[in-house]
Amino acid sequence: MRHVLSAPQFDKPELLEIMNQAADMENILTTKGFSTMAEGKILATFFYEPSTRTRLSFETAMNRLGGKVISVSDGQSSSAKKGETVEDTMQVISGYADVIAMRSSEVGFAERATKTSLVPIINGGDGPGEHPTQSLLDLYTIQKQFGLEKPLRIAFVGDLKYGRTVHSLQNLLRNFDNFSIDWVAPKELDIQDKYFNAGTDRKFTELTDEVLAEADIVYMTRIQQERFDDVAEYERLKDVFILDAAKVAKMKKEAIILHPLPRVDEIATDVDPLPQAKYFEQARNGVPVRMTLIARALEII
Amino acid sequence: MRHVLSAPQFDKPELLEIMNQAADMENILTTKGFSTMAEGKILATFFYEPSTRTRLSFETAMNRLGGKVISVSDGQSSSAKKGETVEDTMQVISGYADVIAMRSSEVGFAERATKTSLVPIINGGDGPGEHPTQSLLDLYTIQKQFGLEKPLRIAFVGDLKYGRTVHSLQNLLRNFDNFSIDWVAPKELDIQDKYFNAGTDRKFTELTDEVLAEADIVYMTRIQQERFDDVAEYERLKDVFILDAAKVAKMKKEAIILHPLPRVDEIATDVDPLPQAKYFEQARNGVPVRMTLIARALEII
Amino acid sequence: MRHVLSAPQFDKPELLEIMNQAADMENILTTKGFSTMAEGKILATFFYEPSTRTRLSFETAMNRLGGKVISVSDGQSSSAKKGETVEDTMQVISGYADVIAMRSSEVGFAERATKTSLVPIINGGDGPGEHPTQSLLDLYTIQKQFGLEKPLRIAFVGDLKYGRTVHSLQNLLRNFDNFSIDWVAPKELDIQDKYFNAGTDRKFTELTDEVLAEADIVYMTRIQQERFDDVAEYERLKDVFILDAAKVAKMKKEAIILHPLPRVDEIATDVDPLPQAKYFEQARNGVPVRMTLIARALEII
Repeated sequence: MRHVLSAPQFDKPELLEIMNQAADMENILTTKGFSTMAEGKILATFFYEPSTRTRLSFETAMNRLGGKVISVSDGQSSSAKKGETVEDTMQVISGYADVIAMRSSEVGFAERATKTSLVPIINGGDGPGEHPTQSLLDLYTIQKQFGLEKPLRIAFVGDLKYGRTVHSLQNLLRNFDNFSIDWVAPKELDIQDKYFNAGTDRKFTELTDEVLAEADIVYMTRIQQERFDDVAEYERLKDVFILDAAKVAKMKKEAIILHPLPRVDEIATDVDPLPQAKYFEQARNGVPVRMTLIARALEII
Repeated sequence: MRHVLSAPQFDKPELLEIMNQAADMENILTTKGFSTMAEGKILATFFYEPSTRTRLSFETAMNRLGGKVISVSDGQSSSAKKGETVEDTMQVISGYADVIAMRSSEVGFAERATKTSLVPIINGGDGPGEHPTQSLLDLYTIQKQFGLEKPLRIAFVGDLKYGRTVHSLQNLLRNFDNFSIDWVAPKELDIQDKYFNAGTDRKFTELTDEVLAEADIVYMTRIQQERFDDVAEYERLKDVFILDAAKVAKMKKEAIILHPLPRVDEIATDVDPLPQAKYFEQARNGVPVRMTLIARALEII
Repeated sequence: MRHVLSAPQFDKPELLEIMNQAADMENILTTKGFSTMAEGKILATFFYEPSTRTRLSFETAMNRLGGKVISVSDGQSSSAKKGETVEDTMQVISGYADVIAMRSSEVGFAERATKTSLVPIINGGDGPGEHPTQSLLDLYTIQKQFGLEKPLRIAFVGDLKYGRTVHSLQNLLRNFDNFSIDWVAPKELDIQDKYFNAGTDRKFTELTDEVLAEADIVYMTRIQQERFDDVAEYERLKDVFILDAAKVAKMKKEAIILHPLPRVDEIATDVDPLPQAKYFEQARNGVPVRMTLIARALEII
């Protein structure tokens, strides 16, 4: 079964195939607006942890494919409370639906679900673990702008220690030869060694003019106060890592700014109207990418 | 874009057009039962404040038009909690859906949403502010019974100070020449001067036989205990403003009783079987009226 | 109207008709996968008490019939809170939907709903009262395996005093001549006299080898700690009433094990791969059975 569990499961040929299929799906959206290819099929969205954006993106994708949706938007309120295991719950739900998208705060939850599920599982985020559909829509956004062949420098900025979207996206990017990575984080939130590629990568502790000027992609993430013992240190760093219009002025005209959203104040709203700001388009790209993953799971493409 | 934000946005020609279109929609419902005119389109219902009736009425309307629905029934549980602004949330959601119906407890929330939304916003109630779709279904119910040309006397009864549905409906009625209004409220909950039209309106502090006998429409609202400092005063007034079968007997046979629902005890259940009781039909009229507003927003009528 | 309120409402001819129609529905599911017979129709699922399994099963059924769904998954959060009666709520909702499936923790709630509803009500469980759709899918699972004519011995095991699914299923089985019942429960949770048929039934206080060897159907239920004053007594009994692979080895090869789910530990997971384990298939049978009940309510079969 075509489960989607983690970024490392994809190799380069499969990634290129998904990118092409997502472009086809986007073409459907911008022309007719919807398809009927999933007629009669059901997606179950099963979110043990609430998530507006990801859940609605999956449900939109299935609806645009012509399928139907059944949904649990707070898994805590039901079977889990009665002491049922995820293996049992998924065995039952997979008797109703043709594909399941799920989220949990527990690492490995989606993989546990595959043990008993009769249908493909798509991991919509398992706590600090994986969020592969986010990484794929990140990659799709990059690919739409630049393709995946010419040399590109991406700056990951903010909380690189805990940010799961950063870890998963860099994993996808390692499948391609053209990416150099600038890791930009305070020491407290530094990237782990296992993710650092000494051959092509660089490290920075501040969002410098050099980083801004050389980046093709600036991927912003939020710095969370609870990661710091020293509140004063948090306040200082938070301000240093804010991207505003003045900083964007130092970027290339054709560079792009990404963010997995929600953003709080790490990107100032004066950036929103600038041509480099692509984070809302990035969120919208979740629909064709998830249409692709659902259609692949259903084996209708 | 055809946002629906507040009752005052509508002028007489537009109101008459909406009334005619709602009648067409009701005709679809009573004959074939559904349409396919919104095939492939998606309505997002985004309710920061729970509301069974209004949310289900919108979702029914979209389903009867042949469209699909994505839904957040408790907006508090998701992006808002993570500190995301409504402007950001709506920019993302409007990348998924073709039209958004939303409710919030905060005045002006729907209008804020229009600042970034890529698709039309329909205000499903913003706290003590506006609830324009309720007013339009109220008007539709009146128009179905009487038309909008012959002289009509409407008695608004109960909490006229805080009742937003009363304020919005009177605003719509002022577009027509044929309405006289009786304002019937205890002094504590009196109508504000700005809504009183000295030329045609009258004021009463009790639901008198005169009011009952002369009204073509009695529009009941609930008196809430928390409006009163003096509990004894609340108890006395509450009873005075209850409508029961004995009082309805003093009304004209062809008069009608409306209520925005839910009712608690301000209309006794012995009124329910009487021919004047139109409040449940009024609630049902929400479906063709909201079908109309959605279809107008989608520009498919 | 074809309400579904309680197991006793069905006689033998109607049960046989439902079984045949459910088989037709299952045939639709295993061939084309879906129908369009309910096109344009709306099911409202109105759950005052959360329930993942039952709600999603109903919604799957309506989706597979080609209809649409509107849903309240926590009825407490809305009209009920504002003091509205179920009679009022249902009169409004029944103006939106063509059929309503509802659950409440209050006995008789579904029947109260029928007093004002304009459309058929299907009881999805009313607290300790009735859960007729569960009983019908239990019967369907038995009928699929054995038919409803040859002599069969069913052992009900566990909490027979409070288990509503046991009470309802035995009620359905009494319509047929071929069932003998073994009631297997600790004294504290013994079956009530009114359910005991002295002519054909037997009582046991432990899950003995004799019961296991002679049963065609073992219907397991959970023993809940809160039923016991003495914790030690609960712990002892709980273990005695656990079904594991060693006990299943004493059962007939062609016997089946049922459970209304969720199970906690009353069936050990080493039973899951055995051929007698039918409880997950039983859960899946809820879809064709509920498709049948919805289609009957809509009068489209």
